[in-house]
Amino acid sequence: MKPDATDGQIEAVVRVIDELGFKPHPMPGSTRTAIGITGNQGPVDPSHFEMLPGIADVIRVSKPYKLVTLDLLPEKTIIRIGDATIGGDNLAIIAGPCAIESRAQTFAVAESVRRSGAKFFRGGAFKPRTSPYAFQGLGEEGLQILAEVRESYGLKIVTEALDEAGVDLVERYGDIIQIGARSMQNFTLLRRVGRSSLPVLLKRGLSATLDEWLLAAEYIMSEGNYQVILCERGIRTFAQHTRNTMDLAAIPAVRRISHLPVIVDPSHGTGKNYMVTPLARAGVAVGADGLIIEVHDRPERALSDGAQALTPQQYEQLVSEVRAIHEVLIPAAVS
Amino acid sequence: MKPDATDGQIEAVVRVIDELGFKPHPMPGSTRTAIGITGNQGPVDPSHFEMLPGIADVIRVSKPYKLVTLDLLPEKTIIRIGDATIGGDNLAIIAGPCAIESRAQTFAVAESVRRSGAKFFRGGAFKPRTSPYAFQGLGEEGLQILAEVRESYGLKIVTEALDEAGVDLVERYGDIIQIGARSMQNFTLLRRVGRSSLPVLLKRGLSATLDEWLLAAEYIMSEGNYQVILCERGIRTFAQHTRNTMDLAAIPAVRRISHLPVIVDPSHGTGKNYMVTPLARAGVAVGADGLIIEVHDRPERALSDGAQALTPQQYEQLVSEVRAIHEVLIPAAVS
Amino acid sequence: MKPDATDGQIEAVVRVIDELGFKPHPMPGSTRTAIGITGNQGPVDPSHFEMLPGIADVIRVSKPYKLVTLDLLPEKTIIRIGDATIGGDNLAIIAGPCAIESRAQTFAVAESVRRSGAKFFRGGAFKPRTSPYAFQGLGEEGLQILAEVRESYGLKIVTEALDEAGVDLVERYGDIIQIGARSMQNFTLLRRVGRSSLPVLLKRGLSATLDEWLLAAEYIMSEGNYQVILCERGIRTFAQHTRNTMDLAAIPAVRRISHLPVIVDPSHGTGKNYMVTPLARAGVAVGADGLIIEVHDRPERALSDGAQALTPQQYEQLVSEVRAIHEVLIPAAVS
Amino acid sequence: MKPDATDGQIEAVVRVIDELGFKPHPMPGSTRTAIGITGNQGPVDPSHFEMLPGIADVIRVSKPYKLVTLDLLPEKTIIRIGDATIGGDNLAIIAGPCAIESRAQTFAVAESVRRSGAKFFRGGAFKPRTSPYAFQGLGEEGLQILAEVRESYGLKIVTEALDEAGVDLVERYGDIIQIGARSMQNFTLLRRVGRSSLPVLLKRGLSATLDEWLLAAEYIMSEGNYQVILCERGIRTFAQHTRNTMDLAAIPAVRRISHLPVIVDPSHGTGKNYMVTPLARAGVAVGADGLIIEVHDRPERALSDGAQALTPQQYEQLVSEVRAIHEVLIPAAVS
Repeated sequence: MKPDATDGQIEAVVRVIDELGFKPHPMPGSTRTAIGITGNQGPVDPSHFEMLPGIADVIRVSKPYKLVTLDLLPEKTIIRIGDATIGGDNLAIIAGPCAIESRAQTFAVAESVRRSGAKFFRGGAFKPRTSPYAFQGLGEEGLQILAEVRESYGLKIVTEALDEAGVDLVERYGDIIQIGARSMQNFTLLRRVGRSSLPVLLKRGLSATLDEWLLAAEYIMSEGNYQVILCERGIRTFAQHTRNTMDLAAIPAVRRISHLPVIVDPSHGTGKNYMVTPLARAGVAVGADGLIIEVHDRPERALSDGAQALTPQQYEQLVSEVRAIHEVLIPAAVS
Repeated sequence: MKPDATDGQIEAVVRVIDELGFKPHPMPGSTRTAIGITGNQGPVDPSHFEMLPGIADVIRVSKPYKLVTLDLLPEKTIIRIGDATIGGDNLAIIAGPCAIESRAQTFAVAESVRRSGAKFFRGGAFKPRTSPYAFQGLGEEGLQILAEVRESYGLKIVTEALDEAGVDLVERYGDIIQIGARSMQNFTLLRRVGRSSLPVLLKRGLSATLDEWLLAAEYIMSEGNYQVILCERGIRTFAQHTRNTMDLAAIPAVRRISHLPVIVDPSHGTGKNYMVTPLARAGVAVGADGLIIEVHDRPERALSDGAQALTPQQYEQLVSEVRAIHEVLIPAAVS
Repeated sequence: MKPDATDGQIEAVVRVIDELGFKPHPMPGSTRTAIGITGNQGPVDPSHFEMLPGIADVIRVSKPYKLVTLDLLPEKTIIRIGDATIGGDNLAIIAGPCAIESRAQTFAVAESVRRSGAKFFRGGAFKPRTSPYAFQGLGEEGLQILAEVRESYGLKIVTEALDEAGVDLVERYGDIIQIGARSMQNFTLLRRVGRSSLPVLLKRGLSATLDEWLLAAEYIMSEGNYQVILCERGIRTFAQHTRNTMDLAAIPAVRRISHLPVIVDPSHGTGKNYMVTPLARAGVAVGADGLIIEVHDRPERALSDGAQALTPQQYEQLVSEVRAIHEVLIPAAVS
Repeated sequence: MKPDATDGQIEAVVRVIDELGFKPHPMPGSTRTAIGITGNQGPVDPSHFEMLPGIADVIRVSKPYKLVTLDLLPEKTIIRIGDATIGGDNLAIIAGPCAIESRAQTFAVAESVRRSGAKFFRGGAFKPRTSPYAFQGLGEEGLQILAEVRESYGLKIVTEALDEAGVDLVERYGDIIQIGARSMQNFTLLRRVGRSSLPVLLKRGLSATLDEWLLAAEYIMSEGNYQVILCERGIRTFAQHTRNTMDLAAIPAVRRISHLPVIVDPSHGTGKNYMVTPLARAGVAVGADGLIIEVHDRPERALSDGAQALTPQQYEQLVSEVRAIHEVLIPAAVS
């Protein structure tokens, strides 16, 4: 649409798309609104739209994904939750324990996260564990603790849902729904969060190609939820000196194709405490919009992933280092 | 339990385990019944059981998985559905189209599958597709066509469920529930099929380690369903001359640890028509209990994965080649 | 060239190519001789040759490799050393210890290899070891022991050269020069063996693509040595239950492109004694022209790779199993 | 040795090690000299040394590598060539074309490299090419052009040797011998450069584990050349959106084990022009001691690897970005 298109003009275009039997996707950007079309079999005749008032241009997207592309929306998407943003000029920092284990542990970590100036708190109430006999999370009780953290500290809550029932609960208590690496191609789940009003943090699968990852985002967006944050968290390779191999080139690769914000997870990406800070620095330097970091007040006693959690002291040092890099980078990241 | 343990003795042991707050898993083998214990935190004191009537031995399983192991059940599990078996002396052949596209296509393929002497028919009604805009399967209508195939040809139906609602439907129309590679760590789904009375065909994930795969089976078994068939279908590697790299060493590796039957899928494992037959021969030669093969009456028109489907003629030739190998192998496979 | 082309006609074509400043590669097949041309920049004008006596056809090869392709030589290359062949109807078996450690060890193994009916004996005198402090082989002394094995048992000797000086020595004592996985892209070494009169066994590199492997063969052939045997020995992947992941689909993939014989190495391909026989069976079933197997009279005392060596008893059992498969396969392998 | 050990005391210890039949490796650090011992079979009795004058401590190194470890030399090695250093406080920048193609091209690029303040110039005279028919470099003529660059601009020359004959030539014309990824386990070549007086830049192999890489450095050092610079240049994985996957976690991993400097190569590491600068920033942020960057005055006409070369303008922008990051990092990198 043209920058000065009225709401009425946008609605009129949406109506025409609907009447043609397709699905309209109006996505507002900072200067103008793009309207994606899906549900078509084969190309759509542009003459249906070209003459409608407010239309700037009709663009054919020839890639396998449509709604994620810069072709459709050339400006970067900024996710806004209250005063917090992901994808804008500020570096978004999401921090917290791997799993919510208790009220005391959660608040001890939240105290540090708040002090660091981060605006997002992470913590799992439903944990996808390789073994059926490992700690699976506190469930709804964990979500309630997270809701208290939000109330006490004003932090926005990012937490994982493993299935449709979990999404219902996260919608009740959280601010951003996390879809974990193992669920990246759980298409039923993707469609469910695509119908949510909460933003979705979509982690890259352990062996997902760039296309598969972007198409997973497309699944969510094709249902009408355009608030998707991508998260690189390491891929599976032959290398054994880390738990996963962080593929930081994925950040410029995503940028070149998509308007969606992309963050990095150096905690899962490396699996080792001493590597988290260097890789967090690298993630910011490569141009990521933010970081997600595991912090535990007593990493040696963590019920899951303790080996990669930072202490609050280490975490606060990390934040000051990445902030310094982000500052000298701002002009470069823009380019 | 001792070979001559009575049903009453078995029940008594189950009751004791229950009363201790653990979960008992009675798994009958061909000569004797093993009873697994899960739900314990830390080791269980063997003196609770050693003196009970009918007990042969109390074995501590120190591996991350328990119910899948030969430590618990030293004889191979044989899955029986009517007159068809997987895991016994006969080579199990599961064949059919990737997706159920129409009644005509399905019956054309089923005719060939029946003629080949195979006892299992495969076909997807719910297709996990990388793109939200690709053909997603006929849904329940596809399952109804499969049920007709069963009625007409006596073939047992193997078909995939993608979510809990899908399991309900597959239980109504099918004989074996397939869990696809992308769902191998969908733990909610694994637990759901763990409560089913149908056997489960569990495909290995694209980047799953052996332990992760066996632990996915353990998820199913820990809910009480011990009828699990493992399926190697290729892993993701740097190699680009095939869609996936078949890891046939996984078959002897599984055998060394587990009593579960294991089959191979050379269609997805290679992604190329001309490789399916050689790799099917290799899969049988390495000692797999069976094969799952994609067949299409007109591969060039298939709505999904046409490049790897065999024509009925190619498929029937494959069956005769693998049968010849299976016959000369029988004594070796036993060793 | 036409099937009835005379030697004089072949020589005349070779001369013309020479005079044009290109490099001629006359490669005799069982029914006719093909003459490859390399050294050209850009396409060569076919009119130079079309009218020469004895020419059947002038074919442009548009692949990155030329001399390895079926486009150039549509019949399979058969390597002949005395009465032994690789690439023909017989299954070629190459067996022996990883490293030559002593005369006694070598003869103990050679006895078993001879008894099995194999025609080739392997054993390393120069070992490429990851650590500079590990046993590096006996050097020339090891080659002398191998030469004695040839004399005593009539076995053809296959042994690795690591550098140009090593090639000089292997040419003196051996029958086939092995180029190991780590040397697959040692282009100086490839060119050197390309000027040898001995056949070359070229192992696939740990992370070599199909194209890179075939182009390594092309390096050898472009120097005039057309006696190249390819060997799949496992690739490096994330999987840790084996030392490498055997990529058996590489066999039909090579077959589709190249006339060169291809064998498999299940010893290095798996790294585990108990997997060698099943994967050897699979390698024969997939259509390989032969096997290379590590045998040690006392695997537990081997100075290198003991974990994967078979005992003579296990090896002889392996040979009988793979022979049985090869027999039922012959018609299939031909197709 | 103690910080105040005299040269005579060091020589005396070296002599004792020699007399015991082992190989001594005196490695001077900034405050004290360490003396490594290799050539021993099994542990060496510390009582041989403990009482010698000047000895501070006798340490057993239980890792597979010895001379590369911090156990032996706890301070970082700094490579010094005239006024240029790698491994100290300054960020080392090595830049230049992939291949030396002509005097004009080389000088055009060298002009830009000099202007950027970099102290090292790279350029290949011997190119390891996948195809025998691709441009293989200018050979000695290329080295002569590089020597002219050194004379004209005072830049230190880094250039690859592919074999022993190549090392002889690089020693005549260059300042640092590069060992490429494909040669990382060319043990004959490693031993040869281990006897050189020039520093060695050792690239990580495409599928090398951390241990294999460090042991390749150990090969060089075990021959007496302790001037080794490690270089991470991307590994081979399933990901196809880049030519290789940069494994930046290798930098902190090396740091934790070894005193050797480590740099990164974002040009080969990504293979794509638009990714080089972001990954260079990431490499500096993760803590690398330097960068090696491909620059070409006309990337679209480059005879090799043009797709990844930066223009001089892009390169100079990169240098200013990474310098800004390096400055804010200095205290962090020290920790």
